[in-house]
Amino acid sequence: MGKERLTAFTDGVVAIIITIMVLELKVPHSTSLGDLAAMAPTFLTYVLSFTYVAIYWNNHHHMLAAVKTVTGPILWANMHLLFWLSVVPFATAWMGENHLAALPVATYGVVLIMNATAYTILMLMLVRNEGPDSAIARAMGRDWKGRISWLAYAAAIALAFFQPIAAKVIYLVVAMVWFIPDPRVERALKGG
Amino acid sequence: MGKERLTAFTDGVVAIIITIMVLELKVPHSTSLGDLAAMAPTFLTYVLSFTYVAIYWNNHHHMLAAVKTVTGPILWANMHLLFWLSVVPFATAWMGENHLAALPVATYGVVLIMNATAYTILMLMLVRNEGPDSAIARAMGRDWKGRISWLAYAAAIALAFFQPIAAKVIYLVVAMVWFIPDPRVERALKGG
Amino acid sequence: MGKERLTAFTDGVVAIIITIMVLELKVPHSTSLGDLAAMAPTFLTYVLSFTYVAIYWNNHHHMLAAVKTVTGPILWANMHLLFWLSVVPFATAWMGENHLAALPVATYGVVLIMNATAYTILMLMLVRNEGPDSAIARAMGRDWKGRISWLAYAAAIALAFFQPIAAKVIYLVVAMVWFIPDPRVERALKGG
Amino acid sequence: MGKERLTAFTDGVVAIIITIMVLELKVPHSTSLGDLAAMAPTFLTYVLSFTYVAIYWNNHHHMLAAVKTVTGPILWANMHLLFWLSVVPFATAWMGENHLAALPVATYGVVLIMNATAYTILMLMLVRNEGPDSAIARAMGRDWKGRISWLAYAAAIALAFFQPIAAKVIYLVVAMVWFIPDPRVERALKGG
Repeated sequence: MGKERLTAFTDGVVAIIITIMVLELKVPHSTSLGDLAAMAPTFLTYVLSFTYVAIYWNNHHHMLAAVKTVTGPILWANMHLLFWLSVVPFATAWMGENHLAALPVATYGVVLIMNATAYTILMLMLVRNEGPDSAIARAMGRDWKGRISWLAYAAAIALAFFQPIAAKVIYLVVAMVWFIPDPRVERALKGG
Repeated sequence: MGKERLTAFTDGVVAIIITIMVLELKVPHSTSLGDLAAMAPTFLTYVLSFTYVAIYWNNHHHMLAAVKTVTGPILWANMHLLFWLSVVPFATAWMGENHLAALPVATYGVVLIMNATAYTILMLMLVRNEGPDSAIARAMGRDWKGRISWLAYAAAIALAFFQPIAAKVIYLVVAMVWFIPDPRVERALKGG
Repeated sequence: MGKERLTAFTDGVVAIIITIMVLELKVPHSTSLGDLAAMAPTFLTYVLSFTYVAIYWNNHHHMLAAVKTVTGPILWANMHLLFWLSVVPFATAWMGENHLAALPVATYGVVLIMNATAYTILMLMLVRNEGPDSAIARAMGRDWKGRISWLAYAAAIALAFFQPIAAKVIYLVVAMVWFIPDPRVERALKGG
Repeated sequence: MGKERLTAFTDGVVAIIITIMVLELKVPHSTSLGDLAAMAPTFLTYVLSFTYVAIYWNNHHHMLAAVKTVTGPILWANMHLLFWLSVVPFATAWMGENHLAALPVATYGVVLIMNATAYTILMLMLVRNEGPDSAIARAMGRDWKGRISWLAYAAAIALAFFQPIAAKVIYLVVAMVWFIPDPRVERALKGG
């Protein structure tokens, strides 16, 4: 089965998710500078989520470029990832409105960890489908970055109940680590 | 007439439908665990509808892969299916807010049965267009799964007025049956 | 300039418009049959607008299939059509809420007439670009159906201030006339 | 890396942005002509923003048509542009509701200047990637139109605090200047 329709559908869903978050940016109640400035935490949360969704799209783009075919179960693993990505706007809106409250900050972390898990499942299924000698298998390697991110999210979720600001710093640092496009795939593709 | 623009348009509409439902996931009023937990029925309804729309996309993907050309009437049969899919977020929101009330649960079933009907009409028109010896004709066969689903939805609609929870169990079971990707097409395509 | 990105962008915008209208289908206030039944006019308005937007997509599909290249001004003529299509959900929501009030019914007609005008401009520019002997020039012919629709909308706008129901009947009849896919293009494409 | 998925994703996001703005066109409270007429400033702001987003899509279309490959950093420069485009509906809604207030009018200008900056960064990275003798390098030239637009937006932001109406006239004039499709690329592509 060709991968074209899967990537096109993923692009559509991700494009909508990334754009729909802006709807949570509600217009200020007045035209005063104070009301605009009060939006800063919401705006920064939106920037963070935009970056996360963009990272997923970029990495998905790289990963699927190294893949030749997809199967029925892979379609479902991709749907599972899209499901958790589609929950990001909800978590963004809640944390944006309550930017230092424990539960929204922890919930944001839970959504991130579910996305990371769904992405890893998709990756493993793609690797198994292409075989151990495939470009993608070599490209993904031991996935240290993915494993450490997962642990970092878990730590942030626990931290959210004591120091929400520290949890948010972790979300920011992990995003910055991933911001750099994945050189593993590119290296493997060149070497392959 | 080529099928490419039809599948691209379908992908676009389905991507929007599946994503737009998340807008119904309204942020809790407070940051308490109680308010988050109170969202569970709405969240589970969203998961169910996401799964249904994903099943339709997956089956549509498989079915159209077995098709060579489309006609004007087929474009309209596809539009008819998209129409009923676009009503799913409405039914989801209503049942999500009133998760044990008879009428919303029955309405959800009516929307499912209209989707199943629209899908069957599209399938029959595609089979007629490709001819009795085509890959799709052999793949679709007698469509027992489709027929039984239709009857199950009809039973659930009636049940909703007496035991809403039983109707919802039926919706869940039918979704689980369809969750397994359609082996008929794949078998026929391989055999063809 | 190739037409592929223009058709893909058009598909995206139309997919969003046709789906976004469903957001206007607000969940009933209660779970009573009366409140569900009270939605009937809104629902029927939604069906009508869905049909109109689907007709535009279908005819756009046929028209662009008969075209080889597009120019900068054609991109803008297409954007102009997309603009007026994007106003359809607004007109639908207003008429849906006030289904027998003169001004919303007339406004709906104004939006339809602007869409018809934008479509005609696009068609004329495509015909001029392809030349008088092209498939599209022969296919479009004298465009009697387009001209009569335009006059019918104009009559309906005037009628809306005296007999809103009569205006709505006209909107319905014109939609039914266009529902039949455009045989002009198909005939010309076969003859060409 | 091929550019196809980048342009497809961009098309998706821009299609959503341009359509989602219509959601800000809230249905009038009554069916009176006065309430409809009161929407005029909001409607005109919507037309202006639609035109700006359409201009960006058109120019992006032309620019990418002159490009052969994209890199990881270019993907991010494109995401950065999409981010600022996705803020346009917010700025549109705020200025539409408060059409002569200093801060919303200035904020609209800030969003325009950020979009212009993001577009320039993307252009410079594409030019550097393709090399000084490429079609796009010759096409973009010294980018006088871009530079003057940037200065005009800056002037409008300052003006917004004294004469909001003058700032809006500048936004309108710059849009009209860009409305004409970019002949630099087309000339260079022909000459190339």
